[in-house]
Amino acid sequence: MREIVVIGVGAGDPEQVTMQAVSALNRVDVFFVLDKGEVKQELVDLRAEILRRYAKDKDHRVVVGRDPERDRTAGAYVEAVGDWRRRRADVCADLIVSELGEDQVGAFLVWGDPALYDSTLAILDDILARGELSFEVEVIPGISSVSTLAARHRVGLNQVGRPVQITTGRRLAKGWPDDVDDVVVMLDAQTAFTEHLDQDADIYWGAYLGTPDEILISGPLREVAAEIEKVRAEARDRKGWIMDTYLLRRKTDQPPPAGLRPRPKE
Amino acid sequence: MREIVVIGVGAGDPEQVTMQAVSALNRVDVFFVLDKGEVKQELVDLRAEILRRYAKDKDHRVVVGRDPERDRTAGAYVEAVGDWRRRRADVCADLIVSELGEDQVGAFLVWGDPALYDSTLAILDDILARGELSFEVEVIPGISSVSTLAARHRVGLNQVGRPVQITTGRRLAKGWPDDVDDVVVMLDAQTAFTEHLDQDADIYWGAYLGTPDEILISGPLREVAAEIEKVRAEARDRKGWIMDTYLLRRKTDQPPPAGLRPRPKE
Ligand SMILES: C[S@@+](CC[C@H](N)C(=O)[O-])C[C@H]1O[C@@H](n2cnc3c(N)ncnc32)[C@H](O)[C@@H]1O
Ligand SMILES: C[S@@+](CC[C@H](N)C(=O)[O-])C[C@H]1O[C@@H](n2cnc3c(N)ncnc32)[C@H](O)[C@@H]1O
Repeated sequence: MREIVVIGVGAGDPEQVTMQAVSALNRVDVFFVLDKGEVKQELVDLRAEILRRYAKDKDHRVVVGRDPERDRTAGAYVEAVGDWRRRRADVCADLIVSELGEDQVGAFLVWGDPALYDSTLAILDDILARGELSFEVEVIPGISSVSTLAARHRVGLNQVGRPVQITTGRRLAKGWPDDVDDVVVMLDAQTAFTEHLDQDADIYWGAYLGTPDEILISGPLREVAAEIEKVRAEARDRKGWIMDTYLLRRKTDQPPPAGLRPRPKE
Repeated sequence: MREIVVIGVGAGDPEQVTMQAVSALNRVDVFFVLDKGEVKQELVDLRAEILRRYAKDKDHRVVVGRDPERDRTAGAYVEAVGDWRRRRADVCADLIVSELGEDQVGAFLVWGDPALYDSTLAILDDILARGELSFEVEVIPGISSVSTLAARHRVGLNQVGRPVQITTGRRLAKGWPDDVDDVVVMLDAQTAFTEHLDQDADIYWGAYLGTPDEILISGPLREVAAEIEKVRAEARDRKGWIMDTYLLRRKTDQPPPAGLRPRPKE
């Protein structure tokens, strides 16, 4: 039986791979890569660096497939993604059939954690659902950009006993989600935080997290929003691409942290 | 200047530590541990195992402080946690002053990811806010139980372009959160999922994730809720403690995954 391992490799720092990921990397015969024909040469190099450092116990091949174009003009986001996913599934199924022996192990490396806004698992489900091909799937969790963001800013994602919501820029632009004060935003090409300057909130923003180009800015949303917009635009122009994520933390009527309150006499 | 590293060590499998965590473990002079005086001997052993396997390049000491009791009878959860946190801060400040040299590195190991429902960062903030002690803080992100849950069930946490909320059992018991179909629940001592059998949802449940005792159950919430309750109660009785978390995924009117739809002719 063929096996496919989906390996989370962290958000940008090769040192974020886990011991478990390293073991998995060294069981792999064929690494599958979908070539996005993109400018993010640094990400290609980073992936190569991860293999060079950590996948040295076993001979392996890297096989590159052509990532189908996604229709970014389409109005219906979910349908466009669905269609793109199906075409990616076609490409992946072909790669698996033609490149992976019946008793071999194939792998997809995923940025961050495969569980967050990544289509690899859905694509594999899709291929399996077609019923023409069968394989085992194993998933190795990775450090997400969300965990990295929190660590770099040295903050928690949630306040005591309170929820946190992870959402997209597209959704945040439509309104602050109900019932949560802590919101993590990913996939935000439109700096949706600028729509919420009426909120009494702090922002913890990070770009290129875990890489040598990492940028961190935090502070009261109203005071730092303009700076983030500026820094973000400059960085994107300079590098040709940007990956950023942020936590918005709305002030609540919770008591302030213990250290800021007068301490009771013991 | 003293330095404190807060190291996420994963949800239960020592192999979940990252390369970054291993480097950090080997810079530490003193590991601080708050003794919970609890029955979870396995967690104590697991922490010892992590140090034994990965912290071998440098001499270090393990210093144990007495974790203050938390008032679990108090009605006001947030205040009770706040008070407990302040007393923990007292204990930690004393440990740091008395055990860590001025130019040494101390560390707290945190289960999962320090960013999720963990008080270590707040305690250190609290100590710093008092102004009597100063130190640098570094945070190493870890694989959370949430990432582990998703990986073991081979599912994503979010649906395409949609949000996911991470919340507590206490909150879920009060109602399904607004505006989200995907909800991850932690800290649930009351099996709050049983309050939502009216929802057309799937559940992905996991206990003791990453450990040899791991239990996974998934399926339509209405069909498997009773089984999860039973298995959970048995496991808790057998081991004396339980740690579990789950994803509730409510059915949406989104199109089904591509593989399940008739494929358009090309
Ligand atoms: C397609 S999603 C993949 C997320 C990934 N699976 C994870 O766990 O981080 C891409 C989004 O993740 C965020 N992201 C990924 N890597 C990042 C990094 N190194 N720095 C900042 N944001 C990042 C950005 O919000 C980006 O739009
Ligand atoms: C105080 S919180 C700490 C969470 C931790 N920082 C993390 O990132 O997973 C404890 C809760 O995390 C979840 N949890 C932690 N470890 C777990 C494990 N190994 N299996 C299942 N749930 C776990 C449970 O919901 C538990 O009530």
